[in-house]
This record gives sequence, structure tokens and C-alpha cells, in this order.
Amino acid sequence: MESKAQVLYDFAAEPGNNELSVREGETITITNQNIGGGWIEARNSRGEVGLVPEDYIEINQAQPLTSGGNAAPLDLSFFDSHVPTPASTAQTSNGNDPWAVFDNNASGGFSNNWAAQPEGTETGKTSNNNAWQSGGHGHPQAYQGPGAEDDEWDEEWDDMKSSGGYAESEAGEGGAMNRGGAHGSSMKIALNKFPGFSKSGPELYLLSKQQTKGNKLSVYSGEVGPVWAYPDYQLDCVVADPKKGSKMYGLKSYIEYQVIPTTTNKPVNHRYKHFDWLYERLLDKFGSAIPIPCLPDKQVTGRFEEEFIKMRMERLQGWMSRMCRHPVVSSSEVFQLFLSYKDEKDWKTGKRKAEKDETVGVMIFSTIEPEGLPDMDLIEVEQKCEQFSRFTKAMDDGVKDLLTVGNEHWKRCTGPLPKEYQRIGKAFQNLSSVFTTSGYEGEGTLTDAMTAAGKTYEEIAQMVAEQPKKDLHFLMETNNEYKGLLGCFPDTIGVHKAAIEKVKEADKLVTAGKITASDKTTMGKRASTMSYALQAEMNHFHNNRIYDYNRVMQQYLEQQVKFYEMIAEKLRQAHSQFTTM
Amino acid sequence: MESKAQVLYDFAAEPGNNELSVREGETITITNQNIGGGWIEARNSRGEVGLVPEDYIEINQAQPLTSGGNAAPLDLSFFDSHVPTPASTAQTSNGNDPWAVFDNNASGGFSNNWAAQPEGTETGKTSNNNAWQSGGHGHPQAYQGPGAEDDEWDEEWDDMKSSGGYAESEAGEGGAMNRGGAHGSSMKIALNKFPGFSKSGPELYLLSKQQTKGNKLSVYSGEVGPVWAYPDYQLDCVVADPKKGSKMYGLKSYIEYQVIPTTTNKPVNHRYKHFDWLYERLLDKFGSAIPIPCLPDKQVTGRFEEEFIKMRMERLQGWMSRMCRHPVVSSSEVFQLFLSYKDEKDWKTGKRKAEKDETVGVMIFSTIEPEGLPDMDLIEVEQKCEQFSRFTKAMDDGVKDLLTVGNEHWKRCTGPLPKEYQRIGKAFQNLSSVFTTSGYEGEGTLTDAMTAAGKTYEEIAQMVAEQPKKDLHFLMETNNEYKGLLGCFPDTIGVHKAAIEKVKEADKLVTAGKITASDKTTMGKRASTMSYALQAEMNHFHNNRIYDYNRVMQQYLEQQVKFYEMIAEKLRQAHSQFTTM
Repeated sequence: MESKAQVLYDFAAEPGNNELSVREGETITITNQNIGGGWIEARNSRGEVGLVPEDYIEINQAQPLTSGGNAAPLDLSFFDSHVPTPASTAQTSNGNDPWAVFDNNASGGFSNNWAAQPEGTETGKTSNNNAWQSGGHGHPQAYQGPGAEDDEWDEEWDDMKSSGGYAESEAGEGGAMNRGGAHGSSMKIALNKFPGFSKSGPELYLLSKQQTKGNKLSVYSGEVGPVWAYPDYQLDCVVADPKKGSKMYGLKSYIEYQVIPTTTNKPVNHRYKHFDWLYERLLDKFGSAIPIPCLPDKQVTGRFEEEFIKMRMERLQGWMSRMCRHPVVSSSEVFQLFLSYKDEKDWKTGKRKAEKDETVGVMIFSTIEPEGLPDMDLIEVEQKCEQFSRFTKAMDDGVKDLLTVGNEHWKRCTGPLPKEYQRIGKAFQNLSSVFTTSGYEGEGTLTDAMTAAGKTYEEIAQMVAEQPKKDLHFLMETNNEYKGLLGCFPDTIGVHKAAIEKVKEADKLVTAGKITASDKTTMGKRASTMSYALQAEMNHFHNNRIYDYNRVMQQYLEQQVKFYEMIAEKLRQAHSQFTTM
Repeated sequence: MESKAQVLYDFAAEPGNNELSVREGETITITNQNIGGGWIEARNSRGEVGLVPEDYIEINQAQPLTSGGNAAPLDLSFFDSHVPTPASTAQTSNGNDPWAVFDNNASGGFSNNWAAQPEGTETGKTSNNNAWQSGGHGHPQAYQGPGAEDDEWDEEWDDMKSSGGYAESEAGEGGAMNRGGAHGSSMKIALNKFPGFSKSGPELYLLSKQQTKGNKLSVYSGEVGPVWAYPDYQLDCVVADPKKGSKMYGLKSYIEYQVIPTTTNKPVNHRYKHFDWLYERLLDKFGSAIPIPCLPDKQVTGRFEEEFIKMRMERLQGWMSRMCRHPVVSSSEVFQLFLSYKDEKDWKTGKRKAEKDETVGVMIFSTIEPEGLPDMDLIEVEQKCEQFSRFTKAMDDGVKDLLTVGNEHWKRCTGPLPKEYQRIGKAFQNLSSVFTTSGYEGEGTLTDAMTAAGKTYEEIAQMVAEQPKKDLHFLMETNNEYKGLLGCFPDTIGVHKAAIEKVKEADKLVTAGKITASDKTTMGKRASTMSYALQAEMNHFHNNRIYDYNRVMQQYLEQQVKFYEMIAEKLRQAHSQFTTM
């Protein structure tokens, strides 16, 4: 079945890459939606066929969704079918507001008033697409998804594209990605975001009879409430020294970053695709309990290469530092592997092991152990969940508001404002030039002073234009990071809300003889464990947030003070050149 | 003959004032163009008739111009008719660029490249019409011309209009203004600007056989070249204490200002119409030799009364101070009368005497005596004149450019910029409010600090919006004053250029036996005298300009320094509230 799609943004095909140039407003026909990697194949009105970034188009009619065909480890079909499973939650997040999910579900009991955001896809990887510093073009960079079965150390699918071969390899991966029988773009996103969800809802954990595998994750009672077990040593790392490499006789090139953990101080090399692999593993393993922020975007084309590499490195650094600060993530085997693998063999072995990890999705909760914390009743669990839901939603609004304001301020500071100071400077200098032609004696002091004043305003123009990079940039980066992080909460909280709904149905199911009273008790206990995990995570979030906002506000204000002081000093110098007669 | 006119700006009639409301773009029919006082009578398409401000409309076809019917004291009809007389010069300045006059004349010899300005009327009284501080609406206030025959101490034609009676009295004055047989709006302006010109060209002085009347005005050789004789004591005055008065049982109200000269320190009271009377006298007497800047505009309606009164007072002060600083103007009998009349009788007597002064127009040159300065030859005279012409034109451009830039900056500083700082402040405060709902302990310091930072940006918004009044205002006022002053130069220089052209024709006229060789010698000598007067005036102008621009730039930069320092200090305080953990 072929669907039509509307083109949302202009896209210029790169020659030799099997791409199709499209124009905003154009209607195209989807010829293959299963390309993967963020691409679809389409045909334009002139019959030309080629690849178009998925994010650049809007498909006119949703494809009928085929549900995943995985055999559930338990027969859970007795649960109400209209209770949203995390899988369907994840599905709706493709192209819709993640926060709106809870408005539309039929589960009731959550009286939130979140209105649907008009911003389009905000969840997961695409949430960083609007590069705020691009001057407001709002032109998303098409996300290029990871290859699912990429196990080759040197296999090319990311970084600097060179001409030829790219589309083919992407297509191959796209096919491979549609594992588990699901197909269509929605399910692909679902797979991308929560691979665990495609085979399970929270009931998988709530009624699990399996023995817990993997390390225990303790939750303690701290000063601020339930907290994760924090390591004595705070891990961090440096992402540095991006180097361009190439292979296949120079046909393909890529960027390799050095990652130096503070533990070993021994650098390891990683390409973007390795970061992305790590992201996928962390999302897979921890995503139900811990919001795993998406990586900075991949880019489609290599324009402004240096700036792009610098920006990506800065954001990878930010992402890695945030992961390092997370006690659960940083101490995980897969994260440790990424930071300190010994050699290629070590990496490959570790990689395979991580990919085979079965304690993923909701099963992560099976490893969580609240230490010395009493079981919570469902009402309290629900209240906590609602509270976090409200808070993260409100903060998401606040952060987006600040980003909007900051973006406008950025545009003004780099556009009209310096132009105006420049014009003021020019006007002073022009007048000064006229004055020099007066032929009047004793003109020199004034004209020199006016020229200097004019030049001062030109310098101020320059300063104004460059200032955002010195202060607003970090404020925007931090808020952008938080926007990404907050965009993960609807899914994470959604898992909890779905679990709560299931526990609520337990009585009915016991009465109907579908589960035992003991099952019901277990479900309640496990919902309590989930709640402790969520509380620990929220406390971790709050702690980090307070640290981050203190730091970024200090940095911002410090730079602002310097900026205004420097302007005042420059003007003081300009002032001193004028004489009083 | 009835003409049609296009309405340029919306005008809302004041009730009871015989006015007609009109809309931008509307076509109206002029029913009486001789109303005067800046008003015309018009009929709209619905047949309603009423008064409309002249500056709000554009008359579709220029009325055929009837030349003035004054009998010339000499038969000068032998001069080439295409040499522009100052009267025709003044006429073209209605609605045209005054600087363009020299481009269009057929006299040759002046190789200036001044392009016609697209700005419309810039000369004389109307040059201040675009109130730059009005935020760019560019809505001119219709100029209300002076009553020509107003000799009554208390007769009402200016200041605060009250309902009724205004249109009638204006109409009466308008008729009276069209003295000398000239009619139509052009001649009215000509009369306004250079009453002396309507009865004479420069030939009146060049070939005058009359004995010089009035005090001699000496030009000396100073350090910078020819200079006026400066008094030992520099006169100044204070314009203060505007008081609302009323008469006719409160039906009519006016504003009276105190003028306190530094000589007597004794305040005298003057209404705007007296300032305007003084302006007319000074223009009449000195306008050919000394650019007499126009007074600040009168206003049509009394909106924002207090602000308007304050602004007018400030500008009257500026105008008076400038006149006080001029050695020729300040020592003149009429100016001294204005500053220090003893009583009403003294004022009335002085007024009548001043109005009967015959040493007006070009005849002012007959009182000028270059002391110890050799006669200049015509080539030098012409070169000097051209130099001044070029300079004043270039400065006029520079000043207008600065005003345009300043106006835009004013708009940004009072409009979008503070709004943006306000939004930044609000965004910080919003986020802070969200943070307070976290329920997390140890939130207080951050939220307090963020709220304070937010409030700081709101304060900065306020500061930004108020700053232009503290610095840009004076820069704009000074440049606006200079724009007015420079707008007088084309006419003043025009007199000199016309005189030069006439002297150039002298040989031909001697050959033709129309003037004697002695007449020719006299003409050359008098052109030299005129040139010394112009040079003295230019040196006075330069001296004042250097003083004024030094002062205003110092003031501007000083306030700018304070502004940026205060912002830096506020931000430093905001910064100190954040903690490093």
C-alpha cells in the first residue's frame, strides 16, 4: 500500500547518495517506508524515486498498525486491552506530543490537564532536532538511526558520509531493524525507543516468576527521601580530540573522539555510532526506570563541518558527563565497558554480552531493592507518580519557554542589535568626517574623539554579536539538555502509570480467578518497588537540576557582568577623549 | 478655483472647533486655502465642510503662483529674470528640498552635486514636524502659523486651544497674512520665512543709495578668520515655570513661561506667541545673514499636555540659549526688549518700533562693517560660499543620518528590547516557581536566587526603556536643533549665491549702460562685505558646533557608562545569590 506524504521542509539531495530533492509543500508518494535509519523512499510527481529524511515529511494517513508478534513469556491477555501498553505509548510518541499520551488514554484516574503541544515530535531522539542556535530556521536535521545488527568494528553507517553506498547500507539496516515482525514507521520508533516494550508491558515485571538476573540496584532512605546508592567516587570523563579517519581507500570517512574516564585516565576511541550503540543499550536496559536522554543529533550533510564537529563533541561531552553522574548508569557493566575496554577483542566480547542482556525494559525493576524502606500503598504510589508527572510537565513548559525566549534573544543579539550599534558607530564617524572638512581651526580634538566614539560603538556591535556564544550558549545548552531529559519522562512515567492501572485491576482479576491473591500481593509490592525507584530517580533529577541550574545561572550572570563592565569601560575611554571648554 | 487634495494622515476633529475628521488616503476638495495658521477648509465626499491641518494633506495640483506686487524701491528689472530671487527660492522651499534649489537654477557656476532629498519639507518651521521621539509614527503636527497683525497683548491664537472660536480667529488671521497681494500656500510660507524677500532681492543692498540705519555690526579678523564682535559678557537666560493662564472667563487658556536673563536676573513673562513674534522679527531682520532656527512646533491638540509643555519649554530654552550665544542677535534691540522689557507699555512701544524696523532682509548687510579686512575678489567670495554650502549640506546629511539611526535605536530601546528582557526575567521566574513545587529539600536557595535574577532582568528592562530619555534624548535634541539650523542655510547661502550672480553680470550691465562703473565697484565691495558676514557667521557656527558636540557627546557617553555600570552592578548582585556546591 502506497501512502502520500506532505513535505515539511526543503531537502537538497546529496549527489550520488540515492537521495531525492524535495520542496516544502510538495506531495510525494511513499514507495518504501521500511528503509530505516531515518529515511524513507519516495516518488515525486515527476516520477523520480529516491530517499528523503523521514522527519522532513508528514505522512498523510497513518498506516494500520500491525501489533508485534513476540510470544509473551506469560499469558497476560486477560488485562484490559484499552489500558495503554508501553509499546502503544511509545508508538503514539511518533509525531505526537509525548505528554498528550496520558490525556488520550482510557485508564482514568490521572487528572492531568496537559494540553497537546503544537511542536510535533518532542520525544526521544528527535527532540533535539530544532537546533536552537541555527537562527530560527527550525529546520530539523533528519535523524539517521543506528544499524540494529551492526557488529562490525569498522562498518560504516555514521559520521561523515561520502558519496555512494550510503543509501544501500541504510536500506539493509532498515530491513534488519524491523525485527520481531513489526513494521511501519511507528513500530520502528517504538523499537528505537523502548525495544523492551515491544515484547512486554509492566505486567511482565509485576507478575514475573523469573529469578532476578544481574546486579542488585539498591534504593536507600536518604535525607531527601528514597535515593539511589551513590558511589564514593564520582565518575566523570572527557570527550576530546575529534579526529577524522577514513577507510575503504578514503571512500568513507568518519570522526573518532577520544573518551578519557577519570578512573583509568586511559583514553579510548569512539565514533558517534558507538555512542549511539551505548545509548540504545542504556535505553533498552534502564529506560523504564531512568530517563535516558537522547544523544545529540546526527547530521544529514556535512556543511560547516568544523563547527558541527565541535558542537557535537560538546554535546557528547554533556551527555557523557550526565551519564557519568548517574549512579545506576555509571556503574553498569555496559557503561564501564564503553569507558574502559582494554582492546578490540574486549570491546567486541562486551558488546555481544550487552546485546544479549535480558534484564531490559520493565525487568530492570526486578533488580531494584528498596533497603529498609516499608512497602508503600497504591494510593501513595499513585500520588507520587502524579506529583512527578505534574512537575516534569511544568518544568518542560518552563524550559521550553526559556528556550523560546533565549532563541529570540539570540537572534536579536546576533542580528538587528549589533547592526544598530554599528550604524550608530558609523553615524558618529560620518559626522566626524564631515567636521574634518570644515576648514575651521581647532577641529582636531572633537573629530578624533568622535571617530573614537564611533569606533567604540562598532566594537560594541562586535561584542554584542559575540556575547551569546559566551553566555547564552551555555544557558541554552543546559536547558536544551533538560528539554531532552524531560522529554523522556512521559515514557518513563507512563510505565509507572500503566503499572498502577494494572495493580488497580488486581482485585477484579482475583475475583474472576485469573490471578491468585498471592499474585495480587506481589503486584502491590512490586508497584511499591517501582515507586521507590521512581522516587530515587526524581531525587537524583532534583539534585542534579539544582546543581546544574546554579552552575549555569552563575556562569551566565558572570559573563553578563563581564560583558556590561567591558562596554562601560570602553565607553569610559571614549568619553575621556572629549574636552570641556 | 477648487483643488482636490489627498489626505496623508488620519486626523480626528476636535468637537466644536469647526474641524473636519479625515482618513488617510481620502480625497477631499479644498474650499478655502486662505484660512491660514496651518489650516485649510475642505469638503469631504459626504459634503461635510470643515478645517483640516495643511500638513495632513497633499494638494493634487500646485496653484498657479502669483508674484508679489510690492513696488521695488529701485528699478532692477534689467537683471536676468531666470536668476533666482530669494523670494522664488523661498517659494520653492514649500514642500521641496531646500538644498535642491541650487540644482535647478540656471545661474551656473555652482558645481554642487546635491541630490534632491525625498524627505519633503525640511526648511523653516516645518522641519521640526516629525517629532523623532514619538516612536516613529512620523505623524506631523500641523503647524499653526503666527498671526501677522497680532498686536494685542492678550489676543489668543496659540497655546492651549479650548473649544469654539479657534477656527474663526485663525481664518481672520489667515486673511490678514496674505498681505502684499500674494496668495496661495506657497507665498504664505515665503512670507513666513523671509518677509524681507518678498520686496527685494540682493540687488536692493548691492545697489542701495540709502544711508545705513541702525547700529553697525563689525566683523573683525580673529584667530580663525573673520569673526563677529563678541561681547565681553556672554548673555544667557533661563526659561522656566510654565503657568497656565486663562482669559475670557476661562473660555481660552494659554501657557506663560518665565524668561530670566542672566543680565538683569529679573523674570519677564512670555507666551509662545511672543516667542514666535520674536522669531519673526529676528528672521525678518537677520535671516539673510544669519540662519535663524525655527521655534519648536506648536501642537494641534492638547494630548499629553504636561509632557508637551515640558518638551516645549526645554526646546524654547534651547532656542533662547542659542540666540543668547549669538553676538549679533543677542545684542539686537528687539532681543533685548524681549528679555528685559520693564512693563507692558515698554513692551508695546518696543514691539511697534521693532515692527517698523526698515533694516531688514538683505539691508542688514548695509550695517555690516568689516574692520581692517581687505576687500575680497569675487572668485574668493564664490569659493568661500561654495565651501560653506558643501559643508552645511554634508553636515545636514550627517545629522539626518544620526537622527534616523537614533530614532530607530530609540524605538528599539523603548519597544522590543525591554520586552525581551522582561520575558527573560519572566522565564527565570517561571522556572523558579516550577522549582518551588518540586517538594525537594534544599530547593530554597536556588529558587530565591532565580527569582531574584528574574526580577533583575525585569529591572533591566525598565532601565533599558527609560535610558533613552537620559542620554539619547539630548543627543537627539542637539542634532534636531542642528537639523533646524542647517535647514536655514540653503536660504541664507542662497542670498549670497544670488548676490554673486548679480555681481557677475555687472560688466555686461556697465557695457549696456544700465549701471555705472562706480555702481559696479560698489557691488563688488558689497559682495565682499556679505562674504565677510558669511565667514563670520560660519566661524560662529563652527565654534558653537564644536562646543555643542563636545558637550552632547560627553553627556551621552557619561550616561551610557552609568547605564552599563548599573546593569553590571545589578547582575553582580543577582550572581552573588547563587551558590556553588
